[in-house]
Amino acid sequence: MDTFLFIVELLGTVAFAISGAITAVEKGMDLFGVAVLGITTATGGGILRDLILGSTPPVAFRDPVYLLVAAGVSLLFFLPWPRRRLRGRHYERALLFSDAVGLAVFTVAGVCGAYRQDPQRSFVLLLFVGCVTGVGGGALRDIFAGDTPYIFVKNIYAVASLAGGALCALLLPRAGKVAAIAAGMAAVILLRLLAAHFDWNLPVAQTPARR
Amino acid sequence: MDTFLFIVELLGTVAFAISGAITAVEKGMDLFGVAVLGITTATGGGILRDLILGSTPPVAFRDPVYLLVAAGVSLLFFLPWPRRRLRGRHYERALLFSDAVGLAVFTVAGVCGAYRQDPQRSFVLLLFVGCVTGVGGGALRDIFAGDTPYIFVKNIYAVASLAGGALCALLLPRAGKVAAIAAGMAAVILLRLLAAHFDWNLPVAQTPARR
Amino acid sequence: MDTFLFIVELLGTVAFAISGAITAVEKGMDLFGVAVLGITTATGGGILRDLILGSTPPVAFRDPVYLLVAAGVSLLFFLPWPRRRLRGRHYERALLFSDAVGLAVFTVAGVCGAYRQDPQRSFVLLLFVGCVTGVGGGALRDIFAGDTPYIFVKNIYAVASLAGGALCALLLPRAGKVAAIAAGMAAVILLRLLAAHFDWNLPVAQTPARR
Repeated sequence: MDTFLFIVELLGTVAFAISGAITAVEKGMDLFGVAVLGITTATGGGILRDLILGSTPPVAFRDPVYLLVAAGVSLLFFLPWPRRRLRGRHYERALLFSDAVGLAVFTVAGVCGAYRQDPQRSFVLLLFVGCVTGVGGGALRDIFAGDTPYIFVKNIYAVASLAGGALCALLLPRAGKVAAIAAGMAAVILLRLLAAHFDWNLPVAQTPARR
Repeated sequence: MDTFLFIVELLGTVAFAISGAITAVEKGMDLFGVAVLGITTATGGGILRDLILGSTPPVAFRDPVYLLVAAGVSLLFFLPWPRRRLRGRHYERALLFSDAVGLAVFTVAGVCGAYRQDPQRSFVLLLFVGCVTGVGGGALRDIFAGDTPYIFVKNIYAVASLAGGALCALLLPRAGKVAAIAAGMAAVILLRLLAAHFDWNLPVAQTPARR
Repeated sequence: MDTFLFIVELLGTVAFAISGAITAVEKGMDLFGVAVLGITTATGGGILRDLILGSTPPVAFRDPVYLLVAAGVSLLFFLPWPRRRLRGRHYERALLFSDAVGLAVFTVAGVCGAYRQDPQRSFVLLLFVGCVTGVGGGALRDIFAGDTPYIFVKNIYAVASLAGGALCALLLPRAGKVAAIAAGMAAVILLRLLAAHFDWNLPVAQTPARR
């Protein structure tokens, strides 16, 4: 069972490392900057989750596999071949898709981590930890890259994380871990991709007419 | 007694949520961005405090009331009515006042949290935790909004937090919690509002004549 | 033995406080902004290390000496005399050198802290904690100052931390703490200064021709 979550987490690590690495390549960072941004994006959410839950050292520090996978994937995207494919719309799509998968994986990983620590946790805590874990890696990526974090500007970003996290938290005690993880991830990815494709947006407040 | 601190913390949560929400509205963020910035500002300082004191999961994750109050207040400020009142100087005043109240509440909440954990803590630790808790939420708000944190640019910002925190830490073992909290908060708010009104500033170093 | 590490850490605190304070002076911050940026830079890496290792409250909060030294050094650099010497190339050199010493000290302090907690820790964990501790303070300094963190743009920055950290981790169980700390620090400082002097750089990915 935990093998399933482990494989899912590796998938998310790969996806977020890709999103960090291609962001770094776009920003003209050097070899190590690309590796650092890939690793930060891929491990940041999980480290935040473990700090919040008081599970120290965070698993990304205890088990080297996350770090090594993130570093390997990042360096791969430094090579000319993957980058040659990443022109124009391909770049946008690769970033959107890898980010959506990472968001989905770490949302359910956050919910499952909080649930495993104590199944009696309140629904709000599961959701909050899931959301922080899911958006944390990407937020660090954007802050380090000097961009406004996705969560503040992209359509349905944190909403997708919350919806998938809620589904996962509801299914965990009822349908088992595999079903909860699969359904939660599917919900996050679907919502993000649909929102991006149809350009769904939440309403924006009309700013007061000052200045 | 702890009921008093709880009510004070709710007041600070409301105040910092307002400051985060109106900052987000000004930046043209969408509905969820407004909620996220309001929540981050209102819960960030307390989460930092609990991580520093090793009290995990932080209370903002354990007790949903902070999160729900911050979310509710933020969404309220997304409605047209409060924003219509927030033009020009009203905006500046609302931001100044809500930020000052939040700074005051979380400064004393930091001092009290460190003191409750161990009354033998050194004065410097109480002050340092109080200051980090007080300025933490606002610093996260400003970084996420892409601004330079208040603490580096506003007159007497961290000085106000330190002065109020020192007063609170001195009174806690002598005059009881209610008096210490009330006096500490009054000192922070008074110093901030006076500094803003009379434009008190600390001296600025003349930068070397390079470039 | 631990006296040696303590003295080394004070040296790093002084060095990072200098780098934070002169960055703040350059940015035209006021008296307190200079102190805050000096303190943040000098204590940030160690606080991150202690949070990661679950050693709370972090030592910078428990033992006031770090805070007071960092504050004192920062205020010193606010005086006219040190700044008058910091024009043009002197500024670049002072920043480079103080940053290199701080990076070296906190890298080995991170490796030693993780090793002291449990000598059975994996090599990767020691390296990762050392690197986060080493680059953490400077990264916070740069984010607060509104710059892109050094780690993403400067030649051989994190590579120097990793190389010195690896040397330190290898020597710790074999040659004792003093030799491990001295060799690790020397490696970091030498690599950073040589890289800056000869302008060594890691390769930069050619960005795709989009936009």
